Amino acid sequence: MGKDGAEIPEDANEHCPGTQSESAGKSDACEGCPNQEACATAPKGPDPDLVSIVERMATVKHKILVLSGKGGVGKSTFSAQLSFALASMDFQVGLLDIDICGPSIPKMLGLEGQEIHQSNLGWSPVYVESNLGVMSIGFMLPNPDDAVIWRGPRKNGIIKQFLKDVYWGELDFLIVDAPPGTSDEHISIVQFLQATGIDGAIIVTTPQQVSLIDVRKEVSFCKKVGLPVLGVVENMSGFSQQLSEFKFMNVSASGEQKDMTESVIAYMRENAPEMLNLIAFSEVFDTSGGGGTKMCRDMEVPFLGKVPLDPQLCKAAEEGRSCFVDGKCKVSAPALKAIIDKLLLTMQVSRMDDGA
Amino acid sequence: MGKDGAEIPEDANEHCPGTQSESAGKSDACEGCPNQEACATAPKGPDPDLVSIVERMATVKHKILVLSGKGGVGKSTFSAQLSFALASMDFQVGLLDIDICGPSIPKMLGLEGQEIHQSNLGWSPVYVESNLGVMSIGFMLPNPDDAVIWRGPRKNGIIKQFLKDVYWGELDFLIVDAPPGTSDEHISIVQFLQATGIDGAIIVTTPQQVSLIDVRKEVSFCKKVGLPVLGVVENMSGFSQQLSEFKFMNVSASGEQKDMTESVIAYMRENAPEMLNLIAFSEVFDTSGGGGTKMCRDMEVPFLGKVPLDPQLCKAAEEGRSCFVDGKCKVSAPALKAIIDKLLLTMQVSRMDDGA
Repeated sequence: MGKDGAEIPEDANEHCPGTQSESAGKSDACEGCPNQEACATAPKGPDPDLVSIVERMATVKHKILVLSGKGGVGKSTFSAQLSFALASMDFQVGLLDIDICGPSIPKMLGLEGQEIHQSNLGWSPVYVESNLGVMSIGFMLPNPDDAVIWRGPRKNGIIKQFLKDVYWGELDFLIVDAPPGTSDEHISIVQFLQATGIDGAIIVTTPQQVSLIDVRKEVSFCKKVGLPVLGVVENMSGFSQQLSEFKFMNVSASGEQKDMTESVIAYMRENAPEMLNLIAFSEVFDTSGGGGTKMCRDMEVPFLGKVPLDPQLCKAAEEGRSCFVDGKCKVSAPALKAIIDKLLLTMQVSRMDDGA
Repeated sequence: MGKDGAEIPEDANEHCPGTQSESAGKSDACEGCPNQEACATAPKGPDPDLVSIVERMATVKHKILVLSGKGGVGKSTFSAQLSFALASMDFQVGLLDIDICGPSIPKMLGLEGQEIHQSNLGWSPVYVESNLGVMSIGFMLPNPDDAVIWRGPRKNGIIKQFLKDVYWGELDFLIVDAPPGTSDEHISIVQFLQATGIDGAIIVTTPQQVSLIDVRKEVSFCKKVGLPVLGVVENMSGFSQQLSEFKFMNVSASGEQKDMTESVIAYMRENAPEMLNLIAFSEVFDTSGGGGTKMCRDMEVPFLGKVPLDPQLCKAAEEGRSCFVDGKCKVSAPALKAIIDKLLLTMQVSRMDDGA
């Protein structure tokens, strides 16, 4: 199939779009259905699609969900760099983007404009390298500017198809990049994958309180649906950059700005050249609340580590590159590497897993 | 009503949860319904709730939606500071948070732990000041850590109630803070408000390409549903902070860090004290694509301005304070003020509007 979004087959077996609202403590499985009586009394046998999903997933060793409470915390950047890192360790990696309304994975992997092909084995992922395949609704849209204005049931249908119809082959890891929040996509992916086993979820956050509040909701979601939390990653944990890469402005009381960069750099070069190589670091968000570390202690989930807000990492993400191959991401790449090592340790996966 | 989420009345009149998938160019209004035949042939008269919404909204002069393609771009911070600013101009302001799964407005306005009260006029907003009222699902949750795991139809029901049952009184502005993306909440709010008139949408973005791609989707959404775009705000447009507030690190080739802050600050104080007052500025995201300005030109929508990533603004947001009252947000507050002035000019609203 190509760029013709209209060809995406409909899922005629979609069930009643309701679910448990566990906050309110009551079931409303048929809420929103115009014919609640018929819905409630309809036969509810096992979903035949779930059987297909179990078969399809039998060749996947580890399944990891990447979640975040809030958007824009760098979740997709993390999913992308995690996939790059695992692939560079010679694991077979699949990256599945279930953000239907705002797929950013194609861009983050440098795959914009690529198309999905169909074979008799199913939909073929798009490959970055021979051991790193990617699937996203982004590959199916005729025009990348178009909004995908889909309500929940339609989104659930496409997620089901991604699990059922994509031919991944043998995988060591399937990384699933979810949209922010705890709604349709999250309920669906967990429901669909539950029978096949999920290793657990990585939750990405930023250090500020509003993000951490949302992460607590995400942890509570995982607990409710019985999904292990593999750990929390604190992203944008302070801004970090070489001093020589800043601009320096003189701001007057009335708000007028004057660029002093040239003279400041010249002064440092002449009088204290060692300053130019220093890394300037600043907290971006107020971390007086203790940040992710404290939240993890409170919620009794593992803390995997911090990654600073590094313009070089942002640039790598924008350009769809791995941050591990050149030496540009001076502070962020070692931080990410340490997090991934810790994750593999937590999951008790060694490189041996690959050769076994 | 208090913190008992279970008391939120159900909306029995919820319609079929489908909608138009305009990307695929086909209607699927009954998709996801288990009884498509009954649904398709059910009588579809005018929704009596829409009449109640029109009545309720008759006392609101201007309605503005705040949207973003991606999350975490500072949309809620912008909505909060916009509301603070309009209230400080003596307008009557209401702020409605329709982010059901991740409400951050209560915290951003300093209203955590507050409750909603019910009178015979309807639900009463929570007031920051006498002319700034706020409504959010966050005020109704028994435990702020709990996840609101709701599928679309349930979310649409509560949004409808917010519009129908909240007693705002006379308002100059109703600011509606939407979750990121283009899904249930967005379709619903536009459908519900369409008959009452919406002035338009402000779209908040960050300068990097992945955000701008999503903003294009948001603009396309607005065009499809006939919602005017009042303008685009580019947030986190570079990192900006006084040089003396940084930490300075020496990073060795092996990645070891040594804190040099004290000696660097002492050196500057002794040899070049004027440097301490300089504002250090750096791009955070790669803006080689032209950022929001170019995107707005391409999409033919107004560009309202840029706000830098300012730790002091983040702190104000965390603490639920206006950034306009003290002088701490040196760079971000004047930038926000200029954007709001431009917005009022675009909407042809003057302070006279208030007294009229």
